[in-house]
Amino acid sequence: MKTLKIGIVGFGRMGQEHLRIISDYSSNAKVKAVCDIDFNQDAKDLIKKYNIREKYTDYKEMLQDKLLDIIYVCTPIDYLTTISIDCIKANKHTFCEENLSKEVEAIQELMDVLKNSNVKFFVGFNKRFDNNFNSVRDTLFQGKVGEPHIIKITSRDPDLPSLDYLKNSGGLFFDMTVDDFDMIRFLTGAEIEEVYAMGAVLIDDVIKEYNDIDTATLNLKLSNGTLCVIDNSRRALYGYDQRIEVHGSLGMVTTSNELQSKAKIYTGYGVIEEKPQYLILERYRQAYIKETEHFLECIIEDKQPLTSCNDSLQALYAAKAAMKSYTENRPVKISEVK
Amino acid sequence: MKTLKIGIVGFGRMGQEHLRIISDYSSNAKVKAVCDIDFNQDAKDLIKKYNIREKYTDYKEMLQDKLLDIIYVCTPIDYLTTISIDCIKANKHTFCEENLSKEVEAIQELMDVLKNSNVKFFVGFNKRFDNNFNSVRDTLFQGKVGEPHIIKITSRDPDLPSLDYLKNSGGLFFDMTVDDFDMIRFLTGAEIEEVYAMGAVLIDDVIKEYNDIDTATLNLKLSNGTLCVIDNSRRALYGYDQRIEVHGSLGMVTTSNELQSKAKIYTGYGVIEEKPQYLILERYRQAYIKETEHFLECIIEDKQPLTSCNDSLQALYAAKAAMKSYTENRPVKISEVK
Amino acid sequence: MKTLKIGIVGFGRMGQEHLRIISDYSSNAKVKAVCDIDFNQDAKDLIKKYNIREKYTDYKEMLQDKLLDIIYVCTPIDYLTTISIDCIKANKHTFCEENLSKEVEAIQELMDVLKNSNVKFFVGFNKRFDNNFNSVRDTLFQGKVGEPHIIKITSRDPDLPSLDYLKNSGGLFFDMTVDDFDMIRFLTGAEIEEVYAMGAVLIDDVIKEYNDIDTATLNLKLSNGTLCVIDNSRRALYGYDQRIEVHGSLGMVTTSNELQSKAKIYTGYGVIEEKPQYLILERYRQAYIKETEHFLECIIEDKQPLTSCNDSLQALYAAKAAMKSYTENRPVKISEVK
Amino acid sequence: MKTLKIGIVGFGRMGQEHLRIISDYSSNAKVKAVCDIDFNQDAKDLIKKYNIREKYTDYKEMLQDKLLDIIYVCTPIDYLTTISIDCIKANKHTFCEENLSKEVEAIQELMDVLKNSNVKFFVGFNKRFDNNFNSVRDTLFQGKVGEPHIIKITSRDPDLPSLDYLKNSGGLFFDMTVDDFDMIRFLTGAEIEEVYAMGAVLIDDVIKEYNDIDTATLNLKLSNGTLCVIDNSRRALYGYDQRIEVHGSLGMVTTSNELQSKAKIYTGYGVIEEKPQYLILERYRQAYIKETEHFLECIIEDKQPLTSCNDSLQALYAAKAAMKSYTENRPVKISEVK
Repeated sequence: MKTLKIGIVGFGRMGQEHLRIISDYSSNAKVKAVCDIDFNQDAKDLIKKYNIREKYTDYKEMLQDKLLDIIYVCTPIDYLTTISIDCIKANKHTFCEENLSKEVEAIQELMDVLKNSNVKFFVGFNKRFDNNFNSVRDTLFQGKVGEPHIIKITSRDPDLPSLDYLKNSGGLFFDMTVDDFDMIRFLTGAEIEEVYAMGAVLIDDVIKEYNDIDTATLNLKLSNGTLCVIDNSRRALYGYDQRIEVHGSLGMVTTSNELQSKAKIYTGYGVIEEKPQYLILERYRQAYIKETEHFLECIIEDKQPLTSCNDSLQALYAAKAAMKSYTENRPVKISEVK
Repeated sequence: MKTLKIGIVGFGRMGQEHLRIISDYSSNAKVKAVCDIDFNQDAKDLIKKYNIREKYTDYKEMLQDKLLDIIYVCTPIDYLTTISIDCIKANKHTFCEENLSKEVEAIQELMDVLKNSNVKFFVGFNKRFDNNFNSVRDTLFQGKVGEPHIIKITSRDPDLPSLDYLKNSGGLFFDMTVDDFDMIRFLTGAEIEEVYAMGAVLIDDVIKEYNDIDTATLNLKLSNGTLCVIDNSRRALYGYDQRIEVHGSLGMVTTSNELQSKAKIYTGYGVIEEKPQYLILERYRQAYIKETEHFLECIIEDKQPLTSCNDSLQALYAAKAAMKSYTENRPVKISEVK
Repeated sequence: MKTLKIGIVGFGRMGQEHLRIISDYSSNAKVKAVCDIDFNQDAKDLIKKYNIREKYTDYKEMLQDKLLDIIYVCTPIDYLTTISIDCIKANKHTFCEENLSKEVEAIQELMDVLKNSNVKFFVGFNKRFDNNFNSVRDTLFQGKVGEPHIIKITSRDPDLPSLDYLKNSGGLFFDMTVDDFDMIRFLTGAEIEEVYAMGAVLIDDVIKEYNDIDTATLNLKLSNGTLCVIDNSRRALYGYDQRIEVHGSLGMVTTSNELQSKAKIYTGYGVIEEKPQYLILERYRQAYIKETEHFLECIIEDKQPLTSCNDSLQALYAAKAAMKSYTENRPVKISEVK
Repeated sequence: MKTLKIGIVGFGRMGQEHLRIISDYSSNAKVKAVCDIDFNQDAKDLIKKYNIREKYTDYKEMLQDKLLDIIYVCTPIDYLTTISIDCIKANKHTFCEENLSKEVEAIQELMDVLKNSNVKFFVGFNKRFDNNFNSVRDTLFQGKVGEPHIIKITSRDPDLPSLDYLKNSGGLFFDMTVDDFDMIRFLTGAEIEEVYAMGAVLIDDVIKEYNDIDTATLNLKLSNGTLCVIDNSRRALYGYDQRIEVHGSLGMVTTSNELQSKAKIYTGYGVIEEKPQYLILERYRQAYIKETEHFLECIIEDKQPLTSCNDSLQALYAAKAAMKSYTENRPVKISEVK
């Protein structure tokens, strides 16, 4: 079997992580080239460690390499669809890290291009590949807790992202809640119909300068009647907090955080447990490995990936509805933002 | 020290429970009389067991007994304020089981009467006396998790109440969520400013006949900026589910359910833990004991009870706002329902 | 139904506790008299609070009261059998707090006296009435984990007892492990056949002055082939540590400690859980209530109590075997100490 | 930096696992050759997948390859020292999977050969590299729970090994408890001084045919005065059970099992948690990765590995003492078996 050749566009934190994962865990694929406008020291070290021969600063040049089968697009969100479209046109299978865009039209354009191509396209909703969340989903699909009545998702980052990131993120609903919207669709197979969002700046006033919020609670109604609540925070000092709870007609299923170790210390001052894992790359390492495994399998066996542009589009609609709801302080139907 | 003499009006499930608690746990008070329009077999058995000499069917008659120091009012909600007012006028210290009324005016009238009296008056927000919830509150007041940003309350009954109860309960927001509203005020010392409520009938269509809902998720904004979510269900088959989580600027505090025992069974088929306690009287037994202890202490030492008519009024405002929000599908400010 | 009248001999910590429990929780029994050679302030306060009319300094005098149905014997261990025998001879039902004696002959004499009487006799193995341990036992008897292969018991006190207590306790095996021996018999219905004990003074050298140890680990073989390990310590700074684990042919059942509350605090410094309950009277309150309830029921309904002198004797044999094993550093068969 | 070339002798389950780990996780080492007397289908598939060019059936031939820097010895225990000695003599760094031998002399001979060589030698006590056990050790070394008083180790396999394995394992104390002995030395830095062991055949009578036991409980005394208990079973139907608890002068530290997922299901029939991980390769995957990482680092940076032949020897002494104790039913001092 031929080894698949991969090029990575955008060689920052996530691009580097995907290099590591592909190199360490995939026996049927290899990173051949990386591309960025600038390579920091970490980037250079990794390129050396993994012996990557080709470095580009212009991705269009890289796309001309006929030997490349797959492109991982790991740039900031504003460039994802444009680059992805070029990848598809160059007939490369495309792995797009993160939700595709903050603009509906951009995703729709991408979908149009994709329709007329034969490449596999993957949207990096990595949480769909998390072991714990899949246990929750299996429990639901096996009917063990009956019909879902209430879904609760907590997702809180350990701390504020860089101001640079905040500037372009599109805001909390677009860079954080968007994953929770996708998770709800993944868990239930139902569509989000209506969103109500409260938001606030409670952590750091700097957030206000970006017209953003740092704390939010949301109420959702799904097409199957299920009610959902999401709560988000940019800062959970105890670690990366990622939990799901589904209350159904026959019971409840929950999943809790992975801790840094299972050691527990009992003293006269209290009982101390380890904190949840802190870094996204630690918490979702297993999911990142699995999504790449899945995508390569789809290419090799000519199967449809588990995530699609439509998933991205639906999550974006929900984020737009949340934003509108927050701005106008009223529940907003998804149909209003389509 | 003189033993305080107590009369109980309304000798159903809760009246009987208070007899048991006063008799078993209080060394400085004694139930002297009980009153109801009808006494069922359980009632008769208890009266015999605890050797209660006086049985009334008309509470006004009972109020004429000069020897009675205290009246516990444990009737259905529709009678609470009227009877309480008569108790106060008869110069009896009054313990009112549950939130006082579904009507603002009724509470206000009671407050007027109370203003001109010297009796102690207690509103039975029993959860304020729960050991676990007090640990959460202490953690907050000691600043251990900083300023509260997000409060999450889950309160779910093990199963649907009787249809008889449903008929007069005033609906989910008035008989279940009302306690969660009070808990939020108790935990934070802040006021609820705005409420958004989603509701649904997902458990049993019979609920629709009472114009009620059986499942709800709510979003609240407090005067101190804290965001809150509440989720309610009439049926949690695994037991009475009563949990609180507060996420703050310095961390999070949670409290989980009390289980039926600490035994855990590990087999080839899975690891089985005991279910949460099922009955409200089991789960909140300790809180019921403590609230009576507290009320008696307030009488003996002439102190102000921890719960007041104003607490009841504020919780009622929030319930009314929730109802209005659900009906009109929009966030409702508390000021709109005052 | 007639109210049973109780006298308490030995009005220290445990005698006082039994007064509280009988008074607060029993509707069919009442403490009429208490007896001790000296009454401290706590004792006097309780006598006043519970309105106990009769105080004795000579228990033999108290035994002449024909109205007394039951005697609770709560003295130090050295007096238990002598007083119990007098109680039985005076035709009083007798509740003996704790294991009966450090001397086999004393128990055997008591058994002889008992054989010719009609009174109910109870040995205060209170842990047999603990909710959690009963869950473990039920799991075993229902066969849910199959045949028991390994039993592990941890029992550790929160801190060293008073030196006064140490002087007369008979040593760790006789005042602490003895309860674990009984628990093993209770859980399995099997007899202890062989004991090996290691012991050490690791906490405080003062223990050496009493020829005692403060830390021990034991290995036991039962008549049904089950292997057991017990570990004991006089000081667990995090609280009273009382755990059981049974590994069987089909799985395992465990029980963990009851915590002071279910609150859990998550901060940047770690996750803090509450400590186990600290005091024996707090941890086993429910079991103390239940054993009295059980004993009164046995008297009223003429049933055999769940604990017998033979249980006490068997636990004593095991303690003697442990002592001999520790002293001679070799495994000792129970038959050697009979 | 030069890539280290590795040869693997013994290409069964563990040899294959080390191929996977080296290939997937090490960027500075590569498996160049594998050797076994026979290659099963799994072996052949892996050799193909990882593109291993050289296959030997005679390890002595393989040792003549000058390009090989390191040999992983993964044969059954009976061949470990002989092959290791040949590796050392061929001047190869040697990684020895598992405890070295059931014979003291064999280890001593190996130690002699090693003394006169310059190679790095590693003994595969993989549990020393487990994240959870290292948290326990760190807690101890940081003095957070004070001086250790009682150590409890539970190690139970999910099920009986193959009869083939049983035939040559040397028995439970030599193939299972031996790791627990090493763990105790690793956790405390103290030596085992005395061992008492009880054993039984409770799972399957087939074990008797091998003069082995399937269940054991042990009592140990360490050079620093600490008391230890170990319990072992060949069958824990709920999964691979690997736990440690250390009770010290200032508190206790425990570590519990890793579960298959963090999902928890609550229904009317009970609360169901996932089982512990079942396979040793799953449970200790992280430790296997870390020990190879460590060994390679020792070679590259010329450092002494964390495990030595002496560790292996000491664990063997303890196993021999346990065997003697079980056979003669008496505590045995380590000095007796030296």
